Amino acid sequence: MARIVCQQIAPRVASLEFNRRLSLNAIEAAVRDRADIIVLPELATSGYSFETAPEAASVAIDVADPLLGEWAAAARYGDAVVIGGFCERGHDGRLYNSAVVVDGSGVLGVYRKVHLWDREKLWFTAGDYPPRVFETRHGRIGVLVCYDLEFPEMPRTLALAGAELIAVPTNWPLSDRPAGERAPEVINAMAAARVNRVFVACCDRAGTERGQEWTGGTSIIDESGWVLSSHEGVGEARAVVDLARAHDKSLTRLADVMADRRPELYGAVTATAGA
Amino acid sequence: MARIVCQQIAPRVASLEFNRRLSLNAIEAAVRDRADIIVLPELATSGYSFETAPEAASVAIDVADPLLGEWAAAARYGDAVVIGGFCERGHDGRLYNSAVVVDGSGVLGVYRKVHLWDREKLWFTAGDYPPRVFETRHGRIGVLVCYDLEFPEMPRTLALAGAELIAVPTNWPLSDRPAGERAPEVINAMAAARVNRVFVACCDRAGTERGQEWTGGTSIIDESGWVLSSHEGVGEARAVVDLARAHDKSLTRLADVMADRRPELYGAVTATAGA
Repeated sequence: MARIVCQQIAPRVASLEFNRRLSLNAIEAAVRDRADIIVLPELATSGYSFETAPEAASVAIDVADPLLGEWAAAARYGDAVVIGGFCERGHDGRLYNSAVVVDGSGVLGVYRKVHLWDREKLWFTAGDYPPRVFETRHGRIGVLVCYDLEFPEMPRTLALAGAELIAVPTNWPLSDRPAGERAPEVINAMAAARVNRVFVACCDRAGTERGQEWTGGTSIIDESGWVLSSHEGVGEARAVVDLARAHDKSLTRLADVMADRRPELYGAVTATAGA
Repeated sequence: MARIVCQQIAPRVASLEFNRRLSLNAIEAAVRDRADIIVLPELATSGYSFETAPEAASVAIDVADPLLGEWAAAARYGDAVVIGGFCERGHDGRLYNSAVVVDGSGVLGVYRKVHLWDREKLWFTAGDYPPRVFETRHGRIGVLVCYDLEFPEMPRTLALAGAELIAVPTNWPLSDRPAGERAPEVINAMAAARVNRVFVACCDRAGTERGQEWTGGTSIIDESGWVLSSHEGVGEARAVVDLARAHDKSLTRLADVMADRRPELYGAVTATAGA
């Protein structure tokens, strides 16, 4: 069984030192809470609402930065795995909206968001590598960042590659929705979990940043698509899950969400004139 | 603007004559209600819960059957388009779980369900053609049947081919769900609408058949993923929609659900060993 904790924190834009302490405290608190898998928001080290590319660059760090080493050191106390977003300066000097996976041994790897949202395109370079599944001490974890999850090909790709859990650091801008409805991004995450029979842990952020409000839609979702835990405002969502259940893709003795796929027919649609 | 009516009727298993009258009455009632697009459930002419292949065969009809001609004649009065499920006997003698699209001129085409659910595999042959978009007098309508919608590649394929509306004749078996939650199939349909920015009209069935209960999840969903109309039990869901809105795939000036896709990265995942 794995204990997942999502830390819905409120980073401060362009304040690396503030966010270093904030993210480290969040990891330490989750470790004290006996978390095995800890998810932090998108761009947890940098904040989100940049006004210029130089401002984003001012809080970019590379994957060898001591800050991520501090995350690893904090994870080591609890034998935890941490997935969190950061503003990455690549070896090519470009900025990426990335998520890192660390455990007590250090950085396991980095995923660079491939679908940049809106004004992110003004300062970030989109990742050019497919989504990845990381073999961790607590399970096979696929990583997506925010808007990536709106492309159903992405969770599908990860599920086909054996992901048990998809961890999604995110910053969901608050949007209007009908009364009584869940945030649309959560509805979409529930569907992604269900159709792929994988667990999904979305860690959103809290706070208001330069007038931007956030959905605060942090949700841990089981492999049937139901929300096990969520949280409003700053704080934790927590759930204990058996990630091995994601290996069973069957729905009945004669139905299986993966074996029933017909990939030879996908994308091959023909528009047909009527009568 | 198009007026969509979904008729959540209660077909009777293996009773072609009963279902002929039932489906015809449903179309006539929707036409009186000024429907432009009428959706009926999956296997509306045959019922669902067969016990044997010969029983399914006993209510199979081919696409030239007078029953579908009656549907067309009923549609003609209101200049409507009808999408409904039927148990099809192909020219090859095999049985298919199909949906037909008819208007006043007759049959525009047939779609054969490609993802067969559970025991359907015991009597039906899966369709071997990709999903289709039908050019109708009331818009470009893609058709899926029930379990097809659980494969996100299917609505994606139709949306990429220009579908404005995806019509989904369905028979959703009732399943347990947490209190206060929508049926999981509806959540999935909402996500399919949202991520593709298409309208989705799912027509479920009512009644109990050989002990099988149904979700009764009929829902007309807009291109942002919100349910415009639904219905419990026997009866109509109705909504007036501007299908042209499905042509606009933009979310902001810099974000577009189709232009932002990265198909070169989909399906190409690499499992990555840790550390």
